[in-house]
Amino acid sequence: MKIKPTPTPSSEKLREQQENVDSTTAEEDFAQVCYDIIPWIKSNEKIDRQLISVSEPRLLLLIEDSMRPDDLSVDGTQAPHISQDTRLDNRVIDLRIPANQAIYRVEAGVCKIFRDTLDAKGFVEIHTPKIISATSEGGASVFQVTYFKSNAYLAQFPPFYKQMAVAADFGKVYTIEAVFRAESTNGHRDLTEFVGLGLEMAFGYHYQAVVDTIGDLFIQFVKGLPERLHLEYREILTLLAEDGIQMGFEEDSSTDNERILGRIVKAKYHADFYILDEYPLTVRPFIQCLIQIILYDMFMRGEEILSGAERIHDPQLLVHYVKHHQINVNQIKSYIDAFRYGCPPHVGGNIGLERVVMLYLGLGNVRKATMFPRDPKRVTP
Amino acid sequence: MKIKPTPTPSSEKLREQQENVDSTTAEEDFAQVCYDIIPWIKSNEKIDRQLISVSEPRLLLLIEDSMRPDDLSVDGTQAPHISQDTRLDNRVIDLRIPANQAIYRVEAGVCKIFRDTLDAKGFVEIHTPKIISATSEGGASVFQVTYFKSNAYLAQFPPFYKQMAVAADFGKVYTIEAVFRAESTNGHRDLTEFVGLGLEMAFGYHYQAVVDTIGDLFIQFVKGLPERLHLEYREILTLLAEDGIQMGFEEDSSTDNERILGRIVKAKYHADFYILDEYPLTVRPFIQCLIQIILYDMFMRGEEILSGAERIHDPQLLVHYVKHHQINVNQIKSYIDAFRYGCPPHVGGNIGLERVVMLYLGLGNVRKATMFPRDPKRVTP
Repeated sequence: MKIKPTPTPSSEKLREQQENVDSTTAEEDFAQVCYDIIPWIKSNEKIDRQLISVSEPRLLLLIEDSMRPDDLSVDGTQAPHISQDTRLDNRVIDLRIPANQAIYRVEAGVCKIFRDTLDAKGFVEIHTPKIISATSEGGASVFQVTYFKSNAYLAQFPPFYKQMAVAADFGKVYTIEAVFRAESTNGHRDLTEFVGLGLEMAFGYHYQAVVDTIGDLFIQFVKGLPERLHLEYREILTLLAEDGIQMGFEEDSSTDNERILGRIVKAKYHADFYILDEYPLTVRPFIQCLIQIILYDMFMRGEEILSGAERIHDPQLLVHYVKHHQINVNQIKSYIDAFRYGCPPHVGGNIGLERVVMLYLGLGNVRKATMFPRDPKRVTP
Repeated sequence: MKIKPTPTPSSEKLREQQENVDSTTAEEDFAQVCYDIIPWIKSNEKIDRQLISVSEPRLLLLIEDSMRPDDLSVDGTQAPHISQDTRLDNRVIDLRIPANQAIYRVEAGVCKIFRDTLDAKGFVEIHTPKIISATSEGGASVFQVTYFKSNAYLAQFPPFYKQMAVAADFGKVYTIEAVFRAESTNGHRDLTEFVGLGLEMAFGYHYQAVVDTIGDLFIQFVKGLPERLHLEYREILTLLAEDGIQMGFEEDSSTDNERILGRIVKAKYHADFYILDEYPLTVRPFIQCLIQIILYDMFMRGEEILSGAERIHDPQLLVHYVKHHQINVNQIKSYIDAFRYGCPPHVGGNIGLERVVMLYLGLGNVRKATMFPRDPKRVTP
């Protein structure tokens, strides 16, 4: 009987131990008797400790080909082009290329910055359920789960449980968790499952503190941005007009206009990231499927990456609004009830991890920033 | 047009701004015209900035009652006892008690230590899909998802995609992600959805390095443990025999024996945590539903919290074994294929976050360490 402090045996010693293990017949007998399988430890032994499993002679994807850019016009060669689908079908090989090794380290870095920045501001990391009893999003389509003798759904609305945590006095909370989207689109920025970096934050007098908190996150993501670029809605109309695009004051910007604006902002302010705030009320809609009012948007390389919203924390107003949209009040009773015992006003936002990394690295497709992506056509590997 | 550096207006200024906003009739008109709803910002204004929503006069759960321990015999009072179900039904109020505020901060701390410890050792945090195309666990029950015009499943086997990342040259990876269990049990340590702290790690000569890495994690979780307590299987038989319990060398320990052993280890070594290693081969089973060989267990307060296992990384052996267990090889083809292009031997383990916190804080039920728990009987709130 002894307490081993920190056993770190030398390679020699380990080799010896392993040889002793391998030379016992017990291992082999057990495997053969119980499972009728080849004595694998022994067989590895025979091939002189080449413990790495033997590769098929022919790879389905050559690392060399996989390393070439999608846009072959760049180097003008006639070298083989590997499609996105072939890459994803053979993802374990494709992930070995240096670019992919880097992408997922950048992604891990974004998560780390998100957490470190919010931890320093007194946020609490929480974990919220993915299986929920009812759809919270009115008519929007959801993934249905067979839950024992009943049905449940996969959570699609990230703020839901974080808001309940705010109502439960947690004040400032964040999550890094899977978010689902049962939308049948295969666009370059759409996945049916993605990683949401979400936060909710109670505020005292003005939501500006929350916008600043989230803005700071992006400044941390993209070191080198000198300061937060904060544009008012009124200002972007002028910017667009200077470029010959007329947009009315009460008109919501289109994706095309957003891209153009991204280029204008880049040229004028040398900024890849900006916050758009001070929307006129009519462009600040109650979103149909969410129970909230959009307050501000954040853009990276001309694409919206975050819509920040003040949630409705008054249960009477909430019920009124839910009924107005013909959502079954009983279905989201526990959500509404969360606000019945005094809840501070709060604002939140949700960032798609893969989208941020895609835009930051200029990858052009969110699948390149997802190790094993899921879309309506793909659930493997 | 201007770049705002860091707008942090004074309270006075914000109050002014807000009053200006509130005094415009546009807000009110919009809300009334478009949605026929009460002008809430205005109405909040009237109640002298009591922005926190008004509480129902009667709470369904008194904070005072909720703060009392479950075991009332402790203080011998006849005060009201609140059942676990009532607490969970009214979770937003229950979470406000100081003990609950603390539990989830401890839980966030455990995640932080897990990440910081592994980051320092060169691990990469990755994210893996929850929606999978096929069940990887033989006959085990899984949650089925309606996926557009087809079906998919919720991932139950945490190592799966982390192993594929190891095969894709990532070497050492970890995840903090939801794990599902479609088991119809309502035990004190069973949930249908929990947070898995999982890691997989390639190794050169001996899995001992991995056991040390994971052991260190727990030492970090529970500061004050002087050193890693490492017991060999042979030793625990002696310990149990000293206590009058006979267990054969090739017999797997029962949960009862594990609890007794926990008490013995605590008394003898003053340790709440120990690693059990050097299992004889017959007690080191191939697990039916997983394709791996158990190598070591870790125990906290007499309950197993982690089973570490070497995964099978030889595709031929894997296929042989999968067929032996009558699992459809085609169903897990992408998993098996991951090992066909040279894969290093690797070991991993998965820790249930809620179980660790339950055992560490002596909570007695994993639901007390889960903000919104899910079990066969509960999917709300």
